[in-house]
Amino acid sequence: MERTGVIIVAGGSGSRAGGARPKQFRFLGGMPVLARTINTFAAALPGAEIVAVLPEQHIGFWKNLSARFDVAEHKIAAGGAERFHSVRNGLAALTSDPGLIAVQDGVRPLGSVAMIRRVAEAAAKHGAAIPVVEPVDSFRETDGEADAAGRAASHIVDRRLLRIVQTPQIFRAEVLRRAYESEYRAEFTDDASVVEAVGQAVCLAEGERENLKLTTPGDFVIAEALIAAREEAENEEGTTDAEHV
Amino acid sequence: MERTGVIIVAGGSGSRAGGARPKQFRFLGGMPVLARTINTFAAALPGAEIVAVLPEQHIGFWKNLSARFDVAEHKIAAGGAERFHSVRNGLAALTSDPGLIAVQDGVRPLGSVAMIRRVAEAAAKHGAAIPVVEPVDSFRETDGEADAAGRAASHIVDRRLLRIVQTPQIFRAEVLRRAYESEYRAEFTDDASVVEAVGQAVCLAEGERENLKLTTPGDFVIAEALIAAREEAENEEGTTDAEHV
Repeated sequence: MERTGVIIVAGGSGSRAGGARPKQFRFLGGMPVLARTINTFAAALPGAEIVAVLPEQHIGFWKNLSARFDVAEHKIAAGGAERFHSVRNGLAALTSDPGLIAVQDGVRPLGSVAMIRRVAEAAAKHGAAIPVVEPVDSFRETDGEADAAGRAASHIVDRRLLRIVQTPQIFRAEVLRRAYESEYRAEFTDDASVVEAVGQAVCLAEGERENLKLTTPGDFVIAEALIAAREEAENEEGTTDAEHV
Repeated sequence: MERTGVIIVAGGSGSRAGGARPKQFRFLGGMPVLARTINTFAAALPGAEIVAVLPEQHIGFWKNLSARFDVAEHKIAAGGAERFHSVRNGLAALTSDPGLIAVQDGVRPLGSVAMIRRVAEAAAKHGAAIPVVEPVDSFRETDGEADAAGRAASHIVDRRLLRIVQTPQIFRAEVLRRAYESEYRAEFTDDASVVEAVGQAVCLAEGERENLKLTTPGDFVIAEALIAAREEAENEEGTTDAEHV
């Protein structure tokens, strides 16, 4: 695998998920969410240069917090006004001249090593790749603003064409760096939209339904359950191995 | 609240969620999924006439299974080739001439009583109402078929306009009955699409992120965790109440 840089975007200071501290610092299975995300990438892409982009006012807090856990080596950069500016700051902090650069949501700690490598391979081949999953729900699209009673007209969307976009979004380094020389636009909701704006096609790779972005209190309940189920499965495997000795 | 009929559509015999039995009969928190769904509607809409639409070959199985649990009173109808035909069979089985009819996914057991009543009130007022939630993920839409390497071109979708559609979908009875006199079309992916085809506007009501449709094995892990968290919260409330005595 080509040398890879990883920008973990954790620049938000909101707490939509409840609790006093921003979501990336909350605990999940006994460890901060951000620590889990960093360690997953260190495991998936050995030797990768990892930069965590944090709200400036939380950098000291994170240094103290992360020192108490077994967190893989990473640099820290300060976040910007929008995600776009945070990624740009992360790009500036990468010093090892990697061939590929992954951009990852800090609050998306549950992606598998296999999935991360799959997206990296697709990016190495095609220049830009993102993990997607097919939705199981039906969707509608609203036709503009709601009326005074909160009602909006809407129409059904063909869900067979829809894909839920996840991270890591991975790019050949020169593609991502060139894209991030653009002026910021409100349509830049993710990194794929930024590279598309400079003409780079984006390859859709297979994501994972469990690769959740932790947004609401319910998401944390779900994530705790998924981690507990995984640890149980790993322990069972361990037992089986021992029996084979 | 107006008298309501409830059609619980559980006509599928797939097992995408793993396990030998169809998902609606699998256990969740010690009870079949379908039993939970039925009981939630009996609690939300007291006196409602409930019809469960089941795969014909599983009707005997369900009668035996449900007798072992505390399941609210319900009739049983046989499912059809598509969801559309199952709903039509459910409509034929409703005998109490309700003013409103709710159509509910059998494998969506986690909606709250408050949400169900909210959708029913919107339907009574506007003729047709469905619960929706705003997605937290980004979305793309593929531009047709994938190439030989599995790659498809795609473009970003403005997620601010997208809504995830859930159930119950609730309608004034005469609206739903008239709509289901239509010939079946492949675009009929839910009941809202059927009533829209006869010119009825559909009101979007506020759904719930936890109102999951159980589709994959991971969904069952998530649902177990949500139920455990709810029961814990209920027990804590109980404790607090006792302390106040």
